[in-house]
Amino acid sequence: MNKRLQQQIAFLVEIDRLKGVLRRTRLLDGSRYENSAEHSWYLAMAALVLSEYAREPIDLLRVIKMALVHDIVEIDAGDTFVFDEQARQTQHERETRAAERIFGLLPPEQAKEFHALWQEFVERRTPEARFAAALDSLVSVIANAHTQGGSWCENNIPIERVLNFDQRIEQGAPTLWKLAKQLIVQAFQPD
Amino acid sequence: MNKRLQQQIAFLVEIDRLKGVLRRTRLLDGSRYENSAEHSWYLAMAALVLSEYAREPIDLLRVIKMALVHDIVEIDAGDTFVFDEQARQTQHERETRAAERIFGLLPPEQAKEFHALWQEFVERRTPEARFAAALDSLVSVIANAHTQGGSWCENNIPIERVLNFDQRIEQGAPTLWKLAKQLIVQAFQPD
Repeated sequence: MNKRLQQQIAFLVEIDRLKGVLRRTRLLDGSRYENSAEHSWYLAMAALVLSEYAREPIDLLRVIKMALVHDIVEIDAGDTFVFDEQARQTQHERETRAAERIFGLLPPEQAKEFHALWQEFVERRTPEARFAAALDSLVSVIANAHTQGGSWCENNIPIERVLNFDQRIEQGAPTLWKLAKQLIVQAFQPD
Repeated sequence: MNKRLQQQIAFLVEIDRLKGVLRRTRLLDGSRYENSAEHSWYLAMAALVLSEYAREPIDLLRVIKMALVHDIVEIDAGDTFVFDEQARQTQHERETRAAERIFGLLPPEQAKEFHALWQEFVERRTPEARFAAALDSLVSVIANAHTQGGSWCENNIPIERVLNFDQRIEQGAPTLWKLAKQLIVQAFQPD
């Protein structure tokens, strides 16, 4: 096996571990917590199905690439709950180190491409990144709305903080923000 | 919510169930069986990393779309083990019915697009489908090679049948078939 292919396979072997990183959200049937690998598939599927709602014209392939790689850093850095302010203070540093190590397993120009995709997702400066981030929020809203408030309830997050955070959906997909708002309000209503 | 968005969300809610469909292969650390959602993510990642090894020029977005949707039919039809001849006799019929129902949840033109992607993957008539199928075999080879023969050993599949089946990798990616052959032979060698 030549060195280049060896590096690519080493990267694929390493990222299998993303299947073992657990998130705070549950499967829609409530049976267990979701892992970050299956979440990444779901996010890519959401991009495929909902691309027409992007606020600005987007390159769909780049959105899907971002969806596929956006959580790989969690293999080292763990999943950071968006409402955990303390963990969020160290998130960027932890994830930056993880990106260096994990994408660094790839041949140099691929390492650079994947690192740039992850960074683009984090920085939200492009239409593609804003749309991907909107979908990332939306799928968590859908999961929590289907599991009696899910991670919001389990962690006592008040509706104001949820609305405040998920408002970023509007920057990527205004129509989907309207839907998300409805789902959030319904989830917080007493039975 | 308008009818179109309602159908799209209903589809996304439905396909969350793919996270509960178990395959015969294990995670590379051997800890548990892999589910078809995280496998689909992994397959899409393999396409992203290994696209340069496709035998013919490919449209990468179409390969990745195929990887993302290729197993969705398993929500109804279950995962069919490639070496289970009896189950394979009914596979096409079960999966065709599943495709009708599940993709049929989407707005008509999206239902048609997703159904066509699944069918293209199954029929292997395009360079994209042959490359996606090659990667689908390769990632199972990698998983079994990392877990002491994995599903091959657990199900007493002789090396001849494995080599015979996985030879399809050559049609999509000759270089990756060379690698897969090495991994298979090594996995079957006595310690």
